[in-house]
Amino acid sequence: MGGNSPCASCKLLRRRCAKDCIFAPYFPSEDPHKFAIVHKVFGASNVSKMLQELPFDQRTDAVSSLVYEANARMRDPVYGCVGAISYLQNQVSELQMQLALAQAEILCIQMQHDQATIVDSGGIVCRGSASPFLLASTIKHLFVNN
Amino acid sequence: MGGNSPCASCKLLRRRCAKDCIFAPYFPSEDPHKFAIVHKVFGASNVSKMLQELPFDQRTDAVSSLVYEANARMRDPVYGCVGAISYLQNQVSELQMQLALAQAEILCIQMQHDQATIVDSGGIVCRGSASPFLLASTIKHLFVNN
Repeated sequence: MGGNSPCASCKLLRRRCAKDCIFAPYFPSEDPHKFAIVHKVFGASNVSKMLQELPFDQRTDAVSSLVYEANARMRDPVYGCVGAISYLQNQVSELQMQLALAQAEILCIQMQHDQATIVDSGGIVCRGSASPFLLASTIKHLFVNN
Repeated sequence: MGGNSPCASCKLLRRRCAKDCIFAPYFPSEDPHKFAIVHKVFGASNVSKMLQELPFDQRTDAVSSLVYEANARMRDPVYGCVGAISYLQNQVSELQMQLALAQAEILCIQMQHDQATIVDSGGIVCRGSASPFLLASTIKHLFVNN
């Protein structure tokens, strides 16, 4: 951060670390890997431009997300972060399917219960909220959304 | 792709498009925006290095994921792709909670049904798989995981 202790970026780029160095607040000399990885993936010049275009209070979050993205690209050079997005989208679809099935099961159980109540009482009794219409719409929702 | 029609990358970088240009198969001249955006976020030199380090059959996927990441960074300069990952992780947590609740509801309904059966028949009848132990473990799972 100026003077005797250059930040990790200026150290790697072998340049003088000015007092107003744009990297210094986010890339301390104790953590050289953090800058090295974003430099390798995005390039120091692009990172500098991206930070300059942001207000100060958003730069820490931007650096964190760039480091996260760069690490993901190093671990998975083909898909990077997009691999994680794809995995999570599949997990969301799978959970939506399981939830729709569980909701359909709740309606099924309630319908069975209602039918058993009608038979047991020998008359027309309506207990619970399940109906064939609701069950059909839940199953339709399940197949339309997956 | 060499000769009279340079690829989008060579056109933007104002250089001759060689026959073995690494960008040409993935950045056709008809789609200049595709290269412009990865160049702005990652830099042409970094994209070239990343592609060179990959076998040919993985380069198309790598370019697609780089374009996706670059677009996400342009839309959201602070969080980029990481914003989407965070959103999806929250969605997964929310769905896991809803699923655990639905599963607990199934057990509750089954237990109520079992109790009604015992009362109706005036004896000890065991119908369904619900038990207080299962219900407790489902609820415990719900609170431990959320």
